Parts: sequence; structure tokens; C-alpha cells
Amino acid sequence: MERIEKQMQFILEIDKEKQIKRKTLQSNGKDFEDDAQHAWHMAIMTLLLSEYANEKIDVLKTISMLLIHDLVEIDAGDTYAYDDQGLKTQNERENLAANRIFNLLPEDQAKKVLHLWNEFEERRTPEAKFARVMDNFQPVMLNAATDGRMWVENGVHLEKILKRNEKTHEGSEVLWKYMYEHFIIPNVEKGRIKE
Amino acid sequence: MERIEKQMQFILEIDKEKQIKRKTLQSNGKDFEDDAQHAWHMAIMTLLLSEYANEKIDVLKTISMLLIHDLVEIDAGDTYAYDDQGLKTQNERENLAANRIFNLLPEDQAKKVLHLWNEFEERRTPEAKFARVMDNFQPVMLNAATDGRMWVENGVHLEKILKRNEKTHEGSEVLWKYMYEHFIIPNVEKGRIKE
Repeated sequence: MERIEKQMQFILEIDKEKQIKRKTLQSNGKDFEDDAQHAWHMAIMTLLLSEYANEKIDVLKTISMLLIHDLVEIDAGDTYAYDDQGLKTQNERENLAANRIFNLLPEDQAKKVLHLWNEFEERRTPEAKFARVMDNFQPVMLNAATDGRMWVENGVHLEKILKRNEKTHEGSEVLWKYMYEHFIIPNVEKGRIKE
Repeated sequence: MERIEKQMQFILEIDKEKQIKRKTLQSNGKDFEDDAQHAWHMAIMTLLLSEYANEKIDVLKTISMLLIHDLVEIDAGDTYAYDDQGLKTQNERENLAANRIFNLLPEDQAKKVLHLWNEFEERRTPEAKFARVMDNFQPVMLNAATDGRMWVENGVHLEKILKRNEKTHEGSEVLWKYMYEHFIIPNVEKGRIKE
């Protein structure tokens, strides 16, 4: 198959990401967000908030990571942050998916995208650390903006949020502090996050 | 208001873009795409297809343009590509919207985003020209993938598609040729686009 045909096949395949619903409400408090909307939101956030990264980041690389990191959910589905059963099999399901979906691309691009995806997962580079801040900050912001309904309905405990965010400060001390003080603590005080 | 508070206000405000429905079907042929999904899709397309730009482009700048260019529709609504009445008032409505929405940001960032938005609208730089290719290519690709239903239901004529795309080749000869040969002509032949 020609290079451009492979690219087109991939581009059409990833349209399915728009169908992957997350467990986060949009700010209107009615509709669940999907993976494509989530990625778009985080990409703009990165453009505007990269000044708060602990270490200088390559913004294009960080945005690229965020744009592609949920594509594996086309096959593997969304695993909720607090779904302990789902989390056990998440890696295996997502690795299979990455293999199938990214390999629709021409070899050089498949390699690059897989590398970006792994970099995000491994969370070692400044870009991956900041991308992970975005991936945690954005849904917590939306949960706070919708009166914490998703925390209440899923009976989420503070301990789990803190566990999930134990490395968030490594990407951005400023944004972790903001998130903790403005989104988490007020919702613990209101009883929407269980202590 | 503090810098970070202004940024947060903007970031939450733009969540509304996820509610702006377009007149393009997703590849499942059932759901309409929204502006946030559309921007996400074009951003990934730019990462993968920038090699076909006529002139070398700054990929981050092009992606930034695509991520923000529809934010004005939060106030101005989506104007369908073939809605002649809507197109007459589009500029005025969108300028007002840009003014309100971008100015939620700290002044330096408001200026940068407004500049990017104008650059896209003016279509003079290589980045703006390529971003415009994406903005035309992506819905035509989805229309073709959904048996041209949106062309049929809206009674779209070939002449209008060609008029709208008269400058597409200025951004990418390769992608214009691909789009013409693979998406447009076959659908004229099948009678889904009126001659």
C-alpha cells in the first residue's frame, strides 16, 4: 500500500476515538466527555499552562503525546481511574491495541507514535511528566466544576485521588498546589470526596 | 485577578466548544461531530501529513491555530460551509466572539491567541494555508466515508465545493489532488454531489 493510503487509513480509523466516553461530565453537568474532546482540551491547556512546568518542556512533543495517548482505548476501552479490576488488565489490553492501531501507519510514523505513547506511559521525561499533570488536572477540574457529582456517584475517597496524584507534583508544583487547594480540598470539606 | 485565575477561567469557558455541533457525520454515520472533536482530529492529521505542505511549516504553530480557531463558535455558533445567509454575518459575529473569549486570558496570551486566530482567517502564511487545507480536507473525508449523506441531504453542488476549495492547493498540492480524486470525483460519479 502507498504511504499516503496508510496514513489515510489510520486517520479514518482514529475517528472512532470520538465514540469513547469517559466518566467525566462536561462543564454543562449533563454530557459525558469523550476521549477526543478530552485530548483537545488538554492540548490547549498545555499551550497556555506550560509556563508552570517544573522543567522546561518541548510543547509540541507534549501536545503530540496528549493527542495520541488515548487512541489505544479504541480497542481497549476507557478504564476508569478508580476501577481496580479494570486497572489490573489495562496494560495488556492497551499494548495489544497500540500494536494494532499504530501499525496502520507507515513504519517510520508508527515507530514515532509508539515511542511517544510509551514515553507518556513511562513518565520519565519532563514532557511526559507534564502531560500526566494535564491528564489528572483536567478531569479533576471538570469534576469540581460540576459540583463533584462524579466523585459522589462513584464514592471516591480522598486517599485514591492522592494516590493517583502522588507524582503530579513532579510535573508541576504550581498546578498540583492549585488543583489540591482549589479543586480537591473544597470538595472534601463539602463532603463530596470521602475522607 | 491573578494570572492563573484568568487562565483557569478561560480553560473552563472553552469547555463549551464540546457542545458546538457541526454538520459533519462521524465515520459511524450516526453522530454529528462537534468542534472539539474536529479540532483534535485535524491536530493529529497535521502531525502526520505536514510532509505534504507546499512550503515547510512550523507544526506547533499550525496545530495551535487549529486547536483554537473554532472557539469563537461558542458565541457565534457553527456556520455551515454552504449556508449563504449565515456566511454574510459570520465575520461580524466571530469578531465579537473572539474579543470576548480571548480576552478572558492574561493580556499577553490573549494577544497571542488573537494573533493566531487572525492569521488563520487571513490565510497568508504557510501555516495558515496548511491549516485551511486540514479544515477543508477533514469534513470532506468524513462525508465521503459516510456515503456522502451530508452532501445529499444538503443538496450540495460540485461548484460550491470547488469554490470553497479554490485555494486549498496553495497549502498542499498533494492533499488537494488526493481529496479531489478520492473523495470528490467518486461522489460526483455516484450522484451524491450534484453537478
